[in-house]
Amino acid sequence: MQQYQKITQKDLDYFIEICGIDFVISDKNNLTDYAKDHTEDLMFYPEVVVKPANTSEISKLLAYCNQQLIPVTPRGAGTGLSGGALPILGGLVIAMERFNKILSIDEQNFQAVVEPGVINEAFQQAVIEKGLFYPPDPASKGSCFLGGNLAHSSGGPRALKYGTTRDYVLNMEIVLADGSIIQTGANTLKYSTGYNLTHLMIGSEGTLAIITKIWLKLISYPTQNLLLLASFESAQAACEAVAGIFKAGNNPSVCEFVEPAGFELSSKLLNIPFENNPEIGAYLLIEVDGNDMDLLFKECEQINTTLEQFGVKDVLFAQTAEEKNHFWKLRRSIGEATKYNNVYKEEDTVVPRASLPILFNEVKAIGKKYGFRTICYGHAGDGNLHVNILKDQLSEDFWNHELDKAITEIFECCKKLGGTISGEHGIGYVQKKFMPVVMPQLQLDLMQKIKMAFDPNGILNPRKIWQ
Amino acid sequence: MQQYQKITQKDLDYFIEICGIDFVISDKNNLTDYAKDHTEDLMFYPEVVVKPANTSEISKLLAYCNQQLIPVTPRGAGTGLSGGALPILGGLVIAMERFNKILSIDEQNFQAVVEPGVINEAFQQAVIEKGLFYPPDPASKGSCFLGGNLAHSSGGPRALKYGTTRDYVLNMEIVLADGSIIQTGANTLKYSTGYNLTHLMIGSEGTLAIITKIWLKLISYPTQNLLLLASFESAQAACEAVAGIFKAGNNPSVCEFVEPAGFELSSKLLNIPFENNPEIGAYLLIEVDGNDMDLLFKECEQINTTLEQFGVKDVLFAQTAEEKNHFWKLRRSIGEATKYNNVYKEEDTVVPRASLPILFNEVKAIGKKYGFRTICYGHAGDGNLHVNILKDQLSEDFWNHELDKAITEIFECCKKLGGTISGEHGIGYVQKKFMPVVMPQLQLDLMQKIKMAFDPNGILNPRKIWQ
Repeated sequence: MQQYQKITQKDLDYFIEICGIDFVISDKNNLTDYAKDHTEDLMFYPEVVVKPANTSEISKLLAYCNQQLIPVTPRGAGTGLSGGALPILGGLVIAMERFNKILSIDEQNFQAVVEPGVINEAFQQAVIEKGLFYPPDPASKGSCFLGGNLAHSSGGPRALKYGTTRDYVLNMEIVLADGSIIQTGANTLKYSTGYNLTHLMIGSEGTLAIITKIWLKLISYPTQNLLLLASFESAQAACEAVAGIFKAGNNPSVCEFVEPAGFELSSKLLNIPFENNPEIGAYLLIEVDGNDMDLLFKECEQINTTLEQFGVKDVLFAQTAEEKNHFWKLRRSIGEATKYNNVYKEEDTVVPRASLPILFNEVKAIGKKYGFRTICYGHAGDGNLHVNILKDQLSEDFWNHELDKAITEIFECCKKLGGTISGEHGIGYVQKKFMPVVMPQLQLDLMQKIKMAFDPNGILNPRKIWQ
Repeated sequence: MQQYQKITQKDLDYFIEICGIDFVISDKNNLTDYAKDHTEDLMFYPEVVVKPANTSEISKLLAYCNQQLIPVTPRGAGTGLSGGALPILGGLVIAMERFNKILSIDEQNFQAVVEPGVINEAFQQAVIEKGLFYPPDPASKGSCFLGGNLAHSSGGPRALKYGTTRDYVLNMEIVLADGSIIQTGANTLKYSTGYNLTHLMIGSEGTLAIITKIWLKLISYPTQNLLLLASFESAQAACEAVAGIFKAGNNPSVCEFVEPAGFELSSKLLNIPFENNPEIGAYLLIEVDGNDMDLLFKECEQINTTLEQFGVKDVLFAQTAEEKNHFWKLRRSIGEATKYNNVYKEEDTVVPRASLPILFNEVKAIGKKYGFRTICYGHAGDGNLHVNILKDQLSEDFWNHELDKAITEIFECCKKLGGTISGEHGIGYVQKKFMPVVMPQLQLDLMQKIKMAFDPNGILNPRKIWQ
């Protein structure tokens, strides 16, 4: 295993020389914000944080750290849920917050060029103003960076109809561990020119190179949408209805699954009224979008017919922008509300869509067996279920040691159903111990060899994914 | 550079032991079909061809060749246009034609499992029968294999609305050079579980591993479509209209560009009447699809308005299935018709959509400068222009040596416009010398290192892409 070096005063002086004194942090009191992300309550202090201004500074930083064997952790907004931005070995954190410019929006080609520190929602808004659409919408869209979205292959509710971040990246400028700068592809909708480095970079969680510029694909903005909230007696009935909707030929833009306890928690946190009927076992939040309202109403009617076939109890239409916003706030705040109320671990399980009821039932059975509660919600149309395991009164010993057995059982179930352990959150630090559940050692070895091709000294984001 | 071994009688005996005598070809007279593909008139004879029946046989073949350092070229239907299936160094060709089974079509999950030797169109038909849709439609769809489509990241006209092959691959079973068998991902719509080996494999042209099973994503079949053929005075006007259509918010499923000479050739080959007006400089073949005919007519009207703004001369609607078929036959046969009439080289240039007029004009100017004719056609909506350079009366010397300078100039223009040298045909053997035009040596070195991670002895499809 690589022998890394601690950062010395000489190194620090060099970082200051490159980035300027205002953009280098080494006082421990000021490092706390960079010691954590949104993953549980984990803390790993970096030795130094730098905030470079441009690609050339990153190139110099990496060339230097590569020579000095200083571990480097690239950091976006720190909204990750798998510990990808945690500097496990200390070393240098490269914070991308100054890469915050939208460089161009090309209305002729439906493309944009951005820096990786642009906030997802800020970018969405900027392109909507030009009648264009950038669909990927992680729950953290109000604060997460586009670069982090690429690093994790992020999704969000609209991935159902529009695909994930991966589907909107045309090209990147990246800095390799030795400081060299390349583009991964071309600014084109089609690309068959050697190994696709763009797609290899997406989801590589900062372990292969640092992204410094992104060419994104845009589409036409759908001006209209309708939102409905359907309630079911059981989670199983709700999940089965999801497969039914697609089988009937409808193509909703969103199809989210929520357990009642999820809405209850977020309604408390937000102080938004939400009346739960004790007969209800699960909700589906369904959106259709497009440009023709008549057509959307027609689509909603068809979906409603399907829902009835699957025993829906009640369907609420969000009539106004305010009502839509109300539902979305409740949905998007579940993660935060869960965290606010309890210590928890979130698993990002994903299976083929129609297997969701099996996964859901298995999660509940495993919880019963081991004695823990879960709150489940997520992107039902994509078969992507976020399983929040609550600590409640469980012992520290169980939580820190025994729980892994239960999580392994959940992931074994995913694997058995053709699924895997992360659909959109990534592996980062907290899930890496579970990688052997879904892939053989030789596949992890293959990833290690790909890593070596990019970063032979292993300086980039060590101890992540499988390392 | 790797020292490869020639195949001996002992090796041959072993291949026969694995595959059976009926599925091993070593008599030169019977090897001709495997010495060529659809790329120009290139011929490279393999020493031996095997036709394995299953993954286990491929595993044994590769483990053996890896040990004996015998070069191995995987082969699909041999419809490639960049020489990817040509066994440049002789050695063993592994022909995938017996991997021809559709293993399952899962109507609940909109997924299918296929072997790589299934013909694209046969698969399309099979899923249409269940109301499902597999959009990728290369011009060779009637004969090309799905495995080859993956290897080349193939597109086709419908890539415009539906994306390329890449967008429909969920997971693969692959055999690595040492004979080990892994799955590249999971059967899920979202995946963020380590490096994405599925996407790395797509477009790797048989140089990393052999694909033995594929999990494909399907969507709902759009039951209706309308097709129209628009004619313009100049190619420039036609190309500008394409960007205009998207700018106006329309989303056609197909938007193909054809020079009159292309239609003339294919109409001769097919003996289908096609009346060309000498005032016409370019055609656009535009399709819209969906489930609601009223909506499609509305969309066609909007497109027509845009076309008028860009000076369209005439718009023909294909009213019947027969008329549609007529236009499509003319479009799809241009490549074949060009080959039938002339020695030619086909370039698969791709640029951002709105830059197509610049590329087109530059191609014509370069042709004028060097003294050759071109026939251009392709997927205008994707900025993907197939440039057929005709040999006509050019000297062998010019054709074999000087022409590369002109092609380099065309590719330099692509690069300058943010494009690249292949959108969907791949690099294979014939384009590899041009790779340095679009990427620096360090990027080619990086690809070489990735290759080494998968295939350290370099037995898989040597002398392709950059090697």
